[in-house]
Amino acid sequence: MTAIAYEQAPPLTVSQWLNARQDLSLESLRGSIVVLHAFQMLCPGCVSHGIPQAKAIHAAFPPDKVRVIGLHTVFEHHAAMGPVSLEAFVHEYRLGFPIAIDTPADNGPIPVTMQAYRLQGTPSLILIDRAGHIRLHHFGQLDDLRAGAAIGQLLAEQSG
Amino acid sequence: MTAIAYEQAPPLTVSQWLNARQDLSLESLRGSIVVLHAFQMLCPGCVSHGIPQAKAIHAAFPPDKVRVIGLHTVFEHHAAMGPVSLEAFVHEYRLGFPIAIDTPADNGPIPVTMQAYRLQGTPSLILIDRAGHIRLHHFGQLDDLRAGAAIGQLLAEQSG
Amino acid sequence: MTAIAYEQAPPLTVSQWLNARQDLSLESLRGSIVVLHAFQMLCPGCVSHGIPQAKAIHAAFPPDKVRVIGLHTVFEHHAAMGPVSLEAFVHEYRLGFPIAIDTPADNGPIPVTMQAYRLQGTPSLILIDRAGHIRLHHFGQLDDLRAGAAIGQLLAEQSG
Amino acid sequence: MTAIAYEQAPPLTVSQWLNARQDLSLESLRGSIVVLHAFQMLCPGCVSHGIPQAKAIHAAFPPDKVRVIGLHTVFEHHAAMGPVSLEAFVHEYRLGFPIAIDTPADNGPIPVTMQAYRLQGTPSLILIDRAGHIRLHHFGQLDDLRAGAAIGQLLAEQSG
Repeated sequence: MTAIAYEQAPPLTVSQWLNARQDLSLESLRGSIVVLHAFQMLCPGCVSHGIPQAKAIHAAFPPDKVRVIGLHTVFEHHAAMGPVSLEAFVHEYRLGFPIAIDTPADNGPIPVTMQAYRLQGTPSLILIDRAGHIRLHHFGQLDDLRAGAAIGQLLAEQSG
Repeated sequence: MTAIAYEQAPPLTVSQWLNARQDLSLESLRGSIVVLHAFQMLCPGCVSHGIPQAKAIHAAFPPDKVRVIGLHTVFEHHAAMGPVSLEAFVHEYRLGFPIAIDTPADNGPIPVTMQAYRLQGTPSLILIDRAGHIRLHHFGQLDDLRAGAAIGQLLAEQSG
Repeated sequence: MTAIAYEQAPPLTVSQWLNARQDLSLESLRGSIVVLHAFQMLCPGCVSHGIPQAKAIHAAFPPDKVRVIGLHTVFEHHAAMGPVSLEAFVHEYRLGFPIAIDTPADNGPIPVTMQAYRLQGTPSLILIDRAGHIRLHHFGQLDDLRAGAAIGQLLAEQSG
Repeated sequence: MTAIAYEQAPPLTVSQWLNARQDLSLESLRGSIVVLHAFQMLCPGCVSHGIPQAKAIHAAFPPDKVRVIGLHTVFEHHAAMGPVSLEAFVHEYRLGFPIAIDTPADNGPIPVTMQAYRLQGTPSLILIDRAGHIRLHHFGQLDDLRAGAAIGQLLAEQSG
């Protein structure tokens, strides 16, 4: 359908999953559109914008077609945002989608998956198509209209 | 691509155009996606939600691919929302897209195009695809995420 | 209680009242705090901010202590905002407080009361104390916290 | 001025102060109005409403007349909201007023000051007048208009 060579989405390197009955992988999600929402629980822009948007996406689309995954990419205040704090956050903010805790790296404060995706910060929104290619990679706030249009375009593509 | 028989969008029956160098018709817009936003200038839900959404759609998408048209469908308070009042409204609210004033009907308070589209009230959002078929017909507030997704799906379709 | 000489509020020169069983005057309201909200029905800042604030003030305080009066000060687009249009606006926006239509002036587009109060535009918020003095005179948006504090200060003053 | 016997505000029992050059006490603040904002860093209603309101109060009034104090009253998820996490929160949310960490109690999950004030939960807003009396005690969201009015009434009182 297109000759553009999209980048294959790197694997998620996860130290712990929340809200998931079993560990997930992008490979196991092939055939669905994956909305990867990278956040930190103490990032104000994530709490005011990114997380509500991820929850709205989770509510708006059929879960078998559009899979929302939260990716907790702690790159600052590591001691403040450990798994115990994140679990309380997920409970209080009623997050209903799976949350992947990005694995701390040996080479510095930026965790492994965040490095692999070359994220510039949080919040970041990544859209992965049914074939596992990165189709949108946005740092900061993206309005719902544009986020919706990007998802709608992927939904219209043949699963092939 | 699909066997569903979509309804052909009825023509716009317009008594006056604002913000348009010449009269427009849906036929002349074939090949573009048309976003038809039906409103009344004194409808609070239009002013708080529908019109800002129409402006956002107008700003977010390439104008040759997505054409936004306002349709002023006055079905109540007719004397309060005449063309002179509407022109001031369009100026004050900085509406930059063409506005069609729906033609009053002989058979009652509901104007001609509003009847043809069987609109239930304002605001209403209608999406027309490149071939002139109605693909979305929504009365009331539709959130930006779902509106964006609907537009994105039409954008992904082949124009052919 | 203070030696500051506050300006006496000029009378309201009104061509028509809406939402009032009888004509009102500031003199008849002595003993109450008067919140005068000057607006134009097609002024976007009035519709998005000033009018919701006036409605919230009307709902938050006892009506015998704080009287909210809308003042429709048309200084532009006169033909677009006549009484018939205003009545539909008041109905659609569910304004429950009395609305005074400012009297057109002989000397130009700015109506009589707007001139007497030297208003710079709309929305404007004017607070008049129990003795009929102007205590706040604000053009543009004033946040609810500061508006509330100004009203609270007048409420705490002895009526004597 | 009034015969109502207002309750004296109980002392703050604080395990640690943030954003304060020295420990504070209500007694040392006599002569100023004290706005006590009780919150938990992982309470969504605090983050979306209470804390922005406390910041707005801090910005709107002269700091010698109105002192804003945050009171971190952790009564659930204790391990998730320790001082290290709170410090990162205070930094990220740019809180500029002093924050008192309420002292954990021996008799259960509710900390000492929270018990003394009989708080029902977070967010809670407490207004203390210049003489150290509790004048407002509100659990949940209080709109800015009413919060401002309550502060304005205290500001208008003679410092006596």
